[in-house]
Amino acid sequence: MKKEKIILAYSGGLDTSIILKWLTNQGFDVVCYVADVGQNDDFEAIKQKAFDTGASKVYVEDLKKELIDDYIFPALRGNAIYESRYLLGTAIARPIIAKRHIEIAKKEKTKYVSHGATGKGNDQVRFEFGFYALYPEVKIISPWKDPKFLSEFKGRSDMINYAKKYNIPIKQSIKKSYSEDENIMHISHEAGVLEDPNIRPDESVFSLTTSPQNAPDKETIIEVEFKNGYPIKITNKNDGTEKTDSLELFTYLNKIAGENGIGRIDIVENRYIGIKSRGIYETPGATILREAHLDLEGIAMDKEVMHLRDMLVPKFSEIIYNGYWFSPEMDFLLSAIDKSQEMIDGKVTLALYKGNIIPIGRESKISLYDEKLSSMEIEGGFDATDSKGFININAIRLKAHNLVLRKNKPFKWREKNKK
Amino acid sequence: MKKEKIILAYSGGLDTSIILKWLTNQGFDVVCYVADVGQNDDFEAIKQKAFDTGASKVYVEDLKKELIDDYIFPALRGNAIYESRYLLGTAIARPIIAKRHIEIAKKEKTKYVSHGATGKGNDQVRFEFGFYALYPEVKIISPWKDPKFLSEFKGRSDMINYAKKYNIPIKQSIKKSYSEDENIMHISHEAGVLEDPNIRPDESVFSLTTSPQNAPDKETIIEVEFKNGYPIKITNKNDGTEKTDSLELFTYLNKIAGENGIGRIDIVENRYIGIKSRGIYETPGATILREAHLDLEGIAMDKEVMHLRDMLVPKFSEIIYNGYWFSPEMDFLLSAIDKSQEMIDGKVTLALYKGNIIPIGRESKISLYDEKLSSMEIEGGFDATDSKGFININAIRLKAHNLVLRKNKPFKWREKNKK
Amino acid sequence: MKKEKIILAYSGGLDTSIILKWLTNQGFDVVCYVADVGQNDDFEAIKQKAFDTGASKVYVEDLKKELIDDYIFPALRGNAIYESRYLLGTAIARPIIAKRHIEIAKKEKTKYVSHGATGKGNDQVRFEFGFYALYPEVKIISPWKDPKFLSEFKGRSDMINYAKKYNIPIKQSIKKSYSEDENIMHISHEAGVLEDPNIRPDESVFSLTTSPQNAPDKETIIEVEFKNGYPIKITNKNDGTEKTDSLELFTYLNKIAGENGIGRIDIVENRYIGIKSRGIYETPGATILREAHLDLEGIAMDKEVMHLRDMLVPKFSEIIYNGYWFSPEMDFLLSAIDKSQEMIDGKVTLALYKGNIIPIGRESKISLYDEKLSSMEIEGGFDATDSKGFININAIRLKAHNLVLRKNKPFKWREKNKK
Amino acid sequence: MKKEKIILAYSGGLDTSIILKWLTNQGFDVVCYVADVGQNDDFEAIKQKAFDTGASKVYVEDLKKELIDDYIFPALRGNAIYESRYLLGTAIARPIIAKRHIEIAKKEKTKYVSHGATGKGNDQVRFEFGFYALYPEVKIISPWKDPKFLSEFKGRSDMINYAKKYNIPIKQSIKKSYSEDENIMHISHEAGVLEDPNIRPDESVFSLTTSPQNAPDKETIIEVEFKNGYPIKITNKNDGTEKTDSLELFTYLNKIAGENGIGRIDIVENRYIGIKSRGIYETPGATILREAHLDLEGIAMDKEVMHLRDMLVPKFSEIIYNGYWFSPEMDFLLSAIDKSQEMIDGKVTLALYKGNIIPIGRESKISLYDEKLSSMEIEGGFDATDSKGFININAIRLKAHNLVLRKNKPFKWREKNKK
Repeated sequence: MKKEKIILAYSGGLDTSIILKWLTNQGFDVVCYVADVGQNDDFEAIKQKAFDTGASKVYVEDLKKELIDDYIFPALRGNAIYESRYLLGTAIARPIIAKRHIEIAKKEKTKYVSHGATGKGNDQVRFEFGFYALYPEVKIISPWKDPKFLSEFKGRSDMINYAKKYNIPIKQSIKKSYSEDENIMHISHEAGVLEDPNIRPDESVFSLTTSPQNAPDKETIIEVEFKNGYPIKITNKNDGTEKTDSLELFTYLNKIAGENGIGRIDIVENRYIGIKSRGIYETPGATILREAHLDLEGIAMDKEVMHLRDMLVPKFSEIIYNGYWFSPEMDFLLSAIDKSQEMIDGKVTLALYKGNIIPIGRESKISLYDEKLSSMEIEGGFDATDSKGFININAIRLKAHNLVLRKNKPFKWREKNKK
Repeated sequence: MKKEKIILAYSGGLDTSIILKWLTNQGFDVVCYVADVGQNDDFEAIKQKAFDTGASKVYVEDLKKELIDDYIFPALRGNAIYESRYLLGTAIARPIIAKRHIEIAKKEKTKYVSHGATGKGNDQVRFEFGFYALYPEVKIISPWKDPKFLSEFKGRSDMINYAKKYNIPIKQSIKKSYSEDENIMHISHEAGVLEDPNIRPDESVFSLTTSPQNAPDKETIIEVEFKNGYPIKITNKNDGTEKTDSLELFTYLNKIAGENGIGRIDIVENRYIGIKSRGIYETPGATILREAHLDLEGIAMDKEVMHLRDMLVPKFSEIIYNGYWFSPEMDFLLSAIDKSQEMIDGKVTLALYKGNIIPIGRESKISLYDEKLSSMEIEGGFDATDSKGFININAIRLKAHNLVLRKNKPFKWREKNKK
Repeated sequence: MKKEKIILAYSGGLDTSIILKWLTNQGFDVVCYVADVGQNDDFEAIKQKAFDTGASKVYVEDLKKELIDDYIFPALRGNAIYESRYLLGTAIARPIIAKRHIEIAKKEKTKYVSHGATGKGNDQVRFEFGFYALYPEVKIISPWKDPKFLSEFKGRSDMINYAKKYNIPIKQSIKKSYSEDENIMHISHEAGVLEDPNIRPDESVFSLTTSPQNAPDKETIIEVEFKNGYPIKITNKNDGTEKTDSLELFTYLNKIAGENGIGRIDIVENRYIGIKSRGIYETPGATILREAHLDLEGIAMDKEVMHLRDMLVPKFSEIIYNGYWFSPEMDFLLSAIDKSQEMIDGKVTLALYKGNIIPIGRESKISLYDEKLSSMEIEGGFDATDSKGFININAIRLKAHNLVLRKNKPFKWREKNKK
Repeated sequence: MKKEKIILAYSGGLDTSIILKWLTNQGFDVVCYVADVGQNDDFEAIKQKAFDTGASKVYVEDLKKELIDDYIFPALRGNAIYESRYLLGTAIARPIIAKRHIEIAKKEKTKYVSHGATGKGNDQVRFEFGFYALYPEVKIISPWKDPKFLSEFKGRSDMINYAKKYNIPIKQSIKKSYSEDENIMHISHEAGVLEDPNIRPDESVFSLTTSPQNAPDKETIIEVEFKNGYPIKITNKNDGTEKTDSLELFTYLNKIAGENGIGRIDIVENRYIGIKSRGIYETPGATILREAHLDLEGIAMDKEVMHLRDMLVPKFSEIIYNGYWFSPEMDFLLSAIDKSQEMIDGKVTLALYKGNIIPIGRESKISLYDEKLSSMEIEGGFDATDSKGFININAIRLKAHNLVLRKNKPFKWREKNKK
C-alpha cells in the first residue's frame, strides 16, 4: 500500500527530528520543509540531517524578502504593536511559513501537514489557522497535541532515548536554558530560566543587539525615506551608505540598530490562549522603522484619519498576534490601512545613540505642514476670531450638562477619582 | 458707578501685563490670579508686578499637589498619550488652572474672567471649556480673540509702546526665540526658531533633562510601587532613597529622570483646531511612570480588559488634549478606567540609563501571573489537547470563508498589499 | 464508599432525565436543580419526575425577579443588541442560572455540576464560563461533550431505549419539530424545520405574540418612566393600569406587547463557536423597553457620551452573547454604562399598534432639551456668527487635504465607490 | 467695473429669493443653481422666478440618479444610521448638492458661492465643508451668518417688506407651521409646532407615507437582490413587478413602502453644533433596503468582519451627519466598508404590512450558511468534544481572575449594578 505523504516543517532541532522519525514510524512518507526566514542556521546541514533521519525529500525555502515585503512592512504601515510594546516579530513570520507549507503540500499532492509547535503556545494556533484558511481540507498532524505522541513522549528523557534508538544526533552543545525563535525581524527569548518576570535577563541572552552600555558613544545619523508608507531608502548620514532594496535595507538597519543597542524589550504579555508569559525580544531594525513611520505620519497624515486608525491599532495587532493574518477581518482592516498610507511619503532623519532613537527632522513634499500649503496661508490666514465661534459652539453641551447637573443631581466632579 | 471685577490669569510676562493694564483701561477692577503649577518662577516678584501694573488684588495659588493627584496620576492610570507619543503635559495642567480660576471668580462674586492664551492655540480652548463647564454663566474676555484688542495690538511694537506708555517693565533678558510652557509635569518648547520640523533643536533648548550623551554612564536602578494604578512609592535602589508623598515622589522622579536624559520628545502634532504644529517636550518623571505602569499592567491586568481599554486610549487622550477634562464623556471613560485599575497593585523595577528606561522586573501579590495562582496549576494543569478544540472551533469560519471565496469569486490573497 | 454528589440542571425533558439516570448509573448522588426563569412549565410535576428518575434532592428556584433586576434591565440600560437585531433573550438568562447552580453546589458541598446543553451551541459555553468564573475549582460533567456518553447515545433511538429500560416517561405529546427555549424575557425557536433560512416560519410557531394581522386595530398608548435608565413605572393610558414592581411591570409589558404583535424577529446569527444559525425569537416587553430607552436617551443623554457608548454597544452585546457576563471586561464596560445612565430619568409615551412601537412623546425634568435650560437661552442665545468660526476652523484640514491631493497625487474622489 | 459672479443655491422659496435680490443689490451677478434631488417641486416655475428676481442665468440640475448611486447606496452599504434611528436622509443629499455647486462655480469661473441655510442648523456645515473640501479657494457668502444681512433682516416682517419692495412674489398658500426638506430618500419635518418633543405630530404632517392604520390589511411580499452590497433588483411577489435600474428601483420602493406605512421616525437628535433638536422623518424605501441589507449580511458576512464593522458604524454615521462626506476619514472608512461588501450577494424576501418589514427568507449563492459549504460538513463534521477545549482555554483567564479577586480583594460581583 502506498504511503501517505506528509509535509513536516523541519528545523533540524531535536523536537522536529524526533517528530520526523515518529511520523515515518507511523507509516508516513515524510517530506521536510525548512523555511529560511532569516534565522542564523546552516541550512545545508539541516537538509542533510533531514535526509539522515528519514526524509524522502527536503525543501529549503528562502522566504526572507517576501517576509519583509508582504508581512513585516504591511504590519509596520499599520503601526502594529501588541499590548503597547511588542512588535510582533514571531507572529508576523508565521503566516508566510504556513503559506509556503500549504503550497508545498499542494505541489506534493497531499493533504497532510505536520509541525512541531507545542500545545501551550501561540505558534500552533498561527500555523494551523494559516493551514485551515488557505486549505480547508488540510489534515494536520500536530504531535504535541496528539494523545498517542504525548503518551509516548512524557519527558525529555523519552526523547533522548528515542533519539539514541534511531541514531538521531543530539546537539553536543549544551542546550540553552530557555527557548529562542529567530527570523529576520527579531529574536525571542523565553521560558526556562527567563520565566520569572522579576529576574533580569543576563546580558548573554542577547544576540542581535549590543547593550546600550557597550554601544558607541557617538550618534549614528540616518535618514529613512518612505513612499506610501513603505520604507524605500535608508541613508547613513555618517558614512553615506545607501540601501534601497527591501532585503538589503532591512538587513542593514538591523545591523546599525543592533550596534547602537536598539530594539530590546522585556515584557509580560497575554498569549491568545489566556496564559500570561514573559518574553524578551530583540527587534532592532523594525524598532527604528516604527519610530520613523510614526514621525512621518505626524507631518503627513490627516488628524481624523490618524485618530480613527489609532483606535484600530490594538485590534489590528491582536489579529496578527492571534494568527488571523489570512482572515476576512484582516482584509477589512488592511483595506483601510492601505488607504491611510497613500499620502505617507517623505523622509525622516533620526539619531541613533545607545538605545535611543531620536527623530531630529522630517519632511514631506505632500506634507500637510508644508509652509506654502499651510492652512494658515489660505484665504488670508487664520482668523483668531474664528476660534471664538469654534469654542462657543463646542461649549454649548458642556454648559447644558452643567445646568442639568446643578439643577437636578448633587453636583460634584468625580470625587471617586481620588485614591 | 462701581467697576466690574474681572479675574485675570496672570503670568507676569509682557502679554498678560499688557492685558492687565488694558482691562483696567477698559474700566475693569482687575484681580490677578497666578497659578503655581510648578513652573520655575519668582511668585513674589510676579505678585508685586501685578500690583504695580494695576491689580487690585492678587491670588497666588499653589496647585502642584492637586495637579499631581487629580490630573497627572489619573491621566497616567489611563495610559494617556496623544498621537502615540505626547504625554499631554500642557493639556493636563489646564483644567486645574481653569477650575481655580472659576473658584476665585465665584469667591470674588464676578462672572468675568480673562486669560492671555492666543487665538491659534489649544490652550484658549482648554481654559474656556473649563470655564464654561464649571460656570456656564461666565463672561470670558479673551483679548487675543477680541477685535478691539487685536486692532489696538497689531504687532509686538504696539505692545512695547503700550508697555512704555504705562511703565510696564519689559524683561531685560533677551526674549527666547521660541515659546515655553512649564509645569511640574513637563516643559514645552515650540514656535519661533523651532517651527521648521526639519531642523534639530539646539541642546540649549532643553532645561529639565540632560542629554543622553551627558547623562551618567551608570545605571540608576529604581523601584516604583503602585496601588490601584496610583504610584505610591519610589525607591532608588542605588542609594536607598524612598519617597511616598505624591509631590515628593513626583519631584524626585523628575530629578533622577532628568539626570538620566529621560523624557524628551520632538514631534509634529495635530492641534485641536486643525493645524499641525511642531512641539518639543521634556516630561522626565511621567515618562518613567508610564513605562512602569504599562509594565505592571502586563502582569496584573486581564487580557480582554487591556485590549478593550487600549482601543479607548486614543479617545481618552484626545479628550484631554482637546480640553474636555470636565465633560460627561470624560466621566464616562474615567468610570471604566477606574474599574480597570482596581487590581493594578505591585512593584516594577527599572534601570535608567542615558535616555533608556529598561523594565527589569515586576511583581504583584495579586498577579494573574503568580506561580501558585497560575492557571496552569488549576485543575491538574493545562491540557494541550484542549488547544486542538480551541483551534478547530476558531478555524470554522476561516475554512468557510475560503470555501466561499474559492467557489464564487476569484481567490487571491490581497495582491494590492504589494507596493 | 460515599457517593460523590453532583448538581444537575434539570428541565424535566427527555435529555436531562436521561442524563439524571446516567449520572446515577455512573455512581453519582444526583441533586436536581430546576431554574424557574419564567418558562411555561409545571414545576411540581418536574420535581416529581426528578425524584422518580432518581434524584436524591430537588431544588426549584424562582429566579424571575432577580433575572429582571440584575440581568435584563442592566442589558437594556446598555442598549444591548446582538448583530443589530437580537435582544439576547437566551444569553441574558444563562448567567443567573449558572450563578444559582454554583450557589447550590457550594451549599451542598460538592464541586460537581452537570448540565444538558449540547456541544454545538452557545449555551454550554455560557453555563460553563459562569461556572468557572464563579467557582474555578468546579468539576463539570457535560454529557454532550463526554466521549463515553456520546458513544452510548448515538441517536435518539438510543435515548428512547434507555428511557424505556429505566422507566423514564417519554412525553406522549408529539415532540415539536424544532427547539424552543423560554424565559421571562423571550422565547426562541430554532433548528429542525426552522433551519432553512429561506422558509418562513408557520404562524403556529409563535407563542408569546399575536401576529400583527391578528392584533387589535386600535392603538394602545403607554407611558414608560425611567430612573437612572431603569424602567420604574408603566402606565397604560387607554385604561389607566399602572405597574411599578419590576416583575409586575415586565410581565404586564410582555402581555400588552404580545397582544399588539410586538417583538418578533427572524435572523441568521453568528454563534460564538463560528457557525451561522437561524433563530426566530419573540421578545415582546423588552422590545418596547429598548425603544423607550433609546428615545429617552435622545432627550437626556449628552451627545459625546452617546456616540462613544454606541461604539461600545457591539462589544457589550458580544460579551453577553458569548457568555462572559461574569468577566472583568463586563465589569469594565458596566462601569462606564452605569455612569452613562445617571441622568437617564424621564417618561416616554408610545403607541403600540400591530407590531409597531411608535414613540409619540418624551419628557425629562433633567432634559438637555428642557426649554428653560436650553443652551439657546444661555447668555443671550445662540449667535449664528459663531457657526462661521466653527465651520472655518473645522474646514482647515479639509482644505489642506485638498491642496495636498491636488498638488501631488492624481485627484479623484473615490471612483471605486461605483459598482 | 465688471460684477463678480456668484453661484446661489436657489430653491424658489422666500428666503433664497430674498437672498438672490440682496446679492444683486450687493453688486453681484447672481447665477442660480437649482438642485433637483427628488423634491416635489415645479422646476420650470422656480427657474422663471429666479430670472424674475434678478438671476442672470439659472442651472436646473437633475442629481437624482447620482444621489442614489453614489451617496444613498454607499451609505446603506455601511448600514449608516445616526443615533440608532435616523437614516440620514437630509445629510446624505448635501454633499452632492455642494459638489455640483462647486462644479458650476468652476465652469462659471468664479470663486463666489452662496446658500440660504441658517446659522443654527447642520446644513450650513455640510454645504460649506463640501465647498471647502472640493475648492479650498472658494469664497462663501452665507447671509444667515453675515452680520450685515442679519442686521437688515431681523425678523420675518423685514423679509416680507423687502419682498414687497422688490416685487418678489410671496406664496399665497399659508406657510406651513414647521420646516420641511425633501429629497428622493426622505422628507424631514421639524421646528415650529413640531418643536415640543412631547407633542405627537398630526397625521397631516406626513406626506410620503400612509399611516400604518390606513395601510392595506394585506401583506406585500417583495424580494430584494443585492450584488456587492448594492441593491440591483426589486421584485414585487404579489404582482410580479420588477425593477433593476437604480432610480426606478428606488422610486418604486419608496412607493410601496409609503403605501404600507413604512419609514416614519420621530426622534430627538443631537445636531453637530451641540443643540438637541426634534425631527420627524419619512424614509420609506431606504428603510426597507436597510432591513434587507442587514438580513443578507446575516447570512453572507463573516462574524468578525461584522462585529468590527459594527463598532465603526456610529463613526461612519457621525461623519455623514456632520458633513464630512468629502474627507480623508470618510475615504478611510469607505475603503474598509467596500471590502466588507465584496461577498454580500444574494436575495432577501420581506413581507411589508402596516409599518412592519418582516424578513421571511434569505439566500446567497456564496452564503457562509450554504448547506454544502457548511462548516459542519467539512472534515467529517463538527466534533462536539472540540467545544470542551474551546471552553477550557477561554475559561483560563476567568478562573485566574476569580482566584485573584478571592485572594486579595473582597469578592463581590458588581453590587452597584443594583438600583
